[in-house]
Amino acid sequence: MSLTVAQIAERLGGDLEGKGSDVITGVAGIREAEKGDISFVANKRYAVDAEETGASAIIVGKDWDKPCSGDIIRVDNPDAAFASIAGEFAPETIEFAAGIHASAVVDPSATLGDDVYVGPCCVIEAGAAIGDRSVLVAGCYVGHRSRVGADCKFYPNVSIREGCLIGDRVILHNGAVVGSDGFGYTVDKEGVRKKIPQIGIVTIGDDTELGANVTIDRARFGKTRIGRGVKIDNQVQVAHNVVIGDHAVIIAQVGIAGSTTIGKHSIIAGQAGVAGHLVIGEGAIVGAAAGVTKDIPPKTFVSGFPAIPHSKSQRLLAHIAKLPELKEKISELEDRLNKLQPEA
Amino acid sequence: MSLTVAQIAERLGGDLEGKGSDVITGVAGIREAEKGDISFVANKRYAVDAEETGASAIIVGKDWDKPCSGDIIRVDNPDAAFASIAGEFAPETIEFAAGIHASAVVDPSATLGDDVYVGPCCVIEAGAAIGDRSVLVAGCYVGHRSRVGADCKFYPNVSIREGCLIGDRVILHNGAVVGSDGFGYTVDKEGVRKKIPQIGIVTIGDDTELGANVTIDRARFGKTRIGRGVKIDNQVQVAHNVVIGDHAVIIAQVGIAGSTTIGKHSIIAGQAGVAGHLVIGEGAIVGAAAGVTKDIPPKTFVSGFPAIPHSKSQRLLAHIAKLPELKEKISELEDRLNKLQPEA
Amino acid sequence: MSLTVAQIAERLGGDLEGKGSDVITGVAGIREAEKGDISFVANKRYAVDAEETGASAIIVGKDWDKPCSGDIIRVDNPDAAFASIAGEFAPETIEFAAGIHASAVVDPSATLGDDVYVGPCCVIEAGAAIGDRSVLVAGCYVGHRSRVGADCKFYPNVSIREGCLIGDRVILHNGAVVGSDGFGYTVDKEGVRKKIPQIGIVTIGDDTELGANVTIDRARFGKTRIGRGVKIDNQVQVAHNVVIGDHAVIIAQVGIAGSTTIGKHSIIAGQAGVAGHLVIGEGAIVGAAAGVTKDIPPKTFVSGFPAIPHSKSQRLLAHIAKLPELKEKISELEDRLNKLQPEA
Repeated sequence: MSLTVAQIAERLGGDLEGKGSDVITGVAGIREAEKGDISFVANKRYAVDAEETGASAIIVGKDWDKPCSGDIIRVDNPDAAFASIAGEFAPETIEFAAGIHASAVVDPSATLGDDVYVGPCCVIEAGAAIGDRSVLVAGCYVGHRSRVGADCKFYPNVSIREGCLIGDRVILHNGAVVGSDGFGYTVDKEGVRKKIPQIGIVTIGDDTELGANVTIDRARFGKTRIGRGVKIDNQVQVAHNVVIGDHAVIIAQVGIAGSTTIGKHSIIAGQAGVAGHLVIGEGAIVGAAAGVTKDIPPKTFVSGFPAIPHSKSQRLLAHIAKLPELKEKISELEDRLNKLQPEA
Repeated sequence: MSLTVAQIAERLGGDLEGKGSDVITGVAGIREAEKGDISFVANKRYAVDAEETGASAIIVGKDWDKPCSGDIIRVDNPDAAFASIAGEFAPETIEFAAGIHASAVVDPSATLGDDVYVGPCCVIEAGAAIGDRSVLVAGCYVGHRSRVGADCKFYPNVSIREGCLIGDRVILHNGAVVGSDGFGYTVDKEGVRKKIPQIGIVTIGDDTELGANVTIDRARFGKTRIGRGVKIDNQVQVAHNVVIGDHAVIIAQVGIAGSTTIGKHSIIAGQAGVAGHLVIGEGAIVGAAAGVTKDIPPKTFVSGFPAIPHSKSQRLLAHIAKLPELKEKISELEDRLNKLQPEA
Repeated sequence: MSLTVAQIAERLGGDLEGKGSDVITGVAGIREAEKGDISFVANKRYAVDAEETGASAIIVGKDWDKPCSGDIIRVDNPDAAFASIAGEFAPETIEFAAGIHASAVVDPSATLGDDVYVGPCCVIEAGAAIGDRSVLVAGCYVGHRSRVGADCKFYPNVSIREGCLIGDRVILHNGAVVGSDGFGYTVDKEGVRKKIPQIGIVTIGDDTELGANVTIDRARFGKTRIGRGVKIDNQVQVAHNVVIGDHAVIIAQVGIAGSTTIGKHSIIAGQAGVAGHLVIGEGAIVGAAAGVTKDIPPKTFVSGFPAIPHSKSQRLLAHIAKLPELKEKISELEDRLNKLQPEA
């Protein structure tokens, strides 16, 4: 793939500044780019890099006012523009031609749609169903009676326990686990725990994506429900009977305890934890590493531990940072008081 | 499966309030339940849901005093009662008939007990042993000379490195790893690390359960020891030479650093971290997201970072929340002092 | 393997105190050691254990001045000395004789070096290459066009996506994932996300080790780059376009967000989080559970949330611990003021 800078500007509907004649053969980050690469900057943090980059051309926003090495293409949304052009320079996509690999183990009672790919060492148990054009790359497991929709992609070592329902166009990354038992026990007087059967399932809506080594527990009864268009990053833990609303975003290493509801379009940032039996309102944002212990109203941004409205949490952090000064101020007042009124 | 509400009340030894004649065909959460379902409430948080539920019957505690839609069954422990009845309405259990799948790779020197199930693509290395009636669902790995007890269940993609010892009735969920190398290196003057051989093993006691994608490192030497009846939730990390006492509970995403001892019957809540070389006393409780940096006496409840007794930690949080007021109070005192004694 | 204490002292170039005639047949922790074991203590915390141990001999530092049960061997670095001697008493190492297991699936276009071991149920896709003497234990996946160096060891269920480049002597523990998609989306006005193609790769330098269930995302474009001699503990998450410098150490459950650079020889302690687009300087140290939100200068030790220089962070914690006293002091001052000047 090769295009001139001018050709790229035209495709993007962007404004070209520079001669535009260089031939672009690849995309790269602003710091790593070399001649022949196109890059982008969307953040003033990278102003120095934009000036020093080896890139032949840089995609920037309409209001970018910093010097750039090489040609410039101005667009409304440099991030999106870059994404669209990066796709054109991508390495050849891996195609998995439809078929069942000889080493795959597919129960005769399982149902496979048209043009399905079941890769090496995959296992599909009795009564399971895989929709049209879905791809199971390798070493994937689909348990008894689970149903996977059309156009799904499961990377190696994904495993889905029995009875779960997966929508269309769902992407599951390596090592993701769907439907493991919820964590539930009764305790006797000697403190010995007895397992509570986890007889529910997990449902996952269309267009949802789960990152590598994510774990989603099946419901104690009923459903753990992941909505449509939900994006879950690597190593997130979702406990039994959680409900995650459509288009929510859960960033890496978040943990969500049992029976909590995460509202539609909400965002839970990395390493945050949400306690059980809570309701996080629609469009709420939970800051990174926050610990949510109470219901969160819709469209609220919370952070800290315990999580409180972000502006308040920031104010408390500022107060904490000034504790040494506060202490000194108090000593000073005490000194002054002592002078006025020496202690008995 | 179908039972009338009256029949269920009788089985549970509970007190029926209502006609009891509805036929129950399933169990469900209080918010999702429909006609024909039985549900339960154990927490006043759900009082509104109990009033609005579609369930035909609700199991409640003896002291429940909120209005409920549908019939009521009163019992001492609604949670346990529901668990027992939910089992009766569970979907058909998946049975794995004894046998070795043709695609499994079992070394001729491995020993398999009676009625063992070794599913597709499992690998059992030389000298390993699997006890009677144990089930390895699919894609599981049991390393050289490792010994697995009777009546164990390993879900897909569990892997156990060489030389480890697993008790009876142990449940390992998808992707759990037992016996990976501990994290240990020597460092030379140039800051280059050399691996310290991790030549110990992991032992796991009877009736213990490990969640999905849990990792338990083998000892540097000797044993990383997980006791009996221990319940470990998803994505927990246990470092080398840790000892976890019998019946301890470790909730999701906890990390326990090397050579720490967790006392019997202790509970470590989600996302907490415990530093290395510590002793957590028997029956201690560590709050969610706490960071434990010192030994914890038995039966103590600690929280916060660094973890301190929970009541103290709560008090400090309350003080922090009032820092803005405190600051104002100090300004007020200063103003008053200034009036009494204007600064020079 | 058996050696007398005197023979071990000689091998270590250490000073023997005691008769040295006991025969040592194993190594063990100071608390678990029995007659015939050699152990070590490097930390005064274990003084009591050194006095009470059942070990026949203990390796200690030159300046150890506490009583020990059994013989003593004094050395400069007891930790390193013990590591070297423990290796001699290790159980027989598992050898994987070169060869391709019959159940492995190796694409005809893949290239395997000399004396490679490809264990049961491994999958090597088209165009991939594995260097001389590398070992893939079982259930490992190497994607299209990925290149693995010489003398690598991949434990069960490791998976590497397409196009990634792995150096020599790299160790990947069970369930580690290399090259899963970075977490990147565009959002439309309705809050619906569209996947940004993640067309970059991951490169891993020589002598690097990744723990169990680690996840390393591929770059959005260009490379996610893990340097040489890097040691990454279990369950660490590394996002797209991160750069980790040579000989850095990342301890369990750390999360590093996208496009951040971790300097050479830096140490990120357990459960810490590092936000995206930051630069952590060479030789910096990030404390356990810290949350890094700003660039960190070289050789700086930071901790807390948000992370600040460790001494400052410790001071703030001390101030917080004294908030109850501070509050009382203020009340006292107020009382005194009230006496001086009763409020209107």
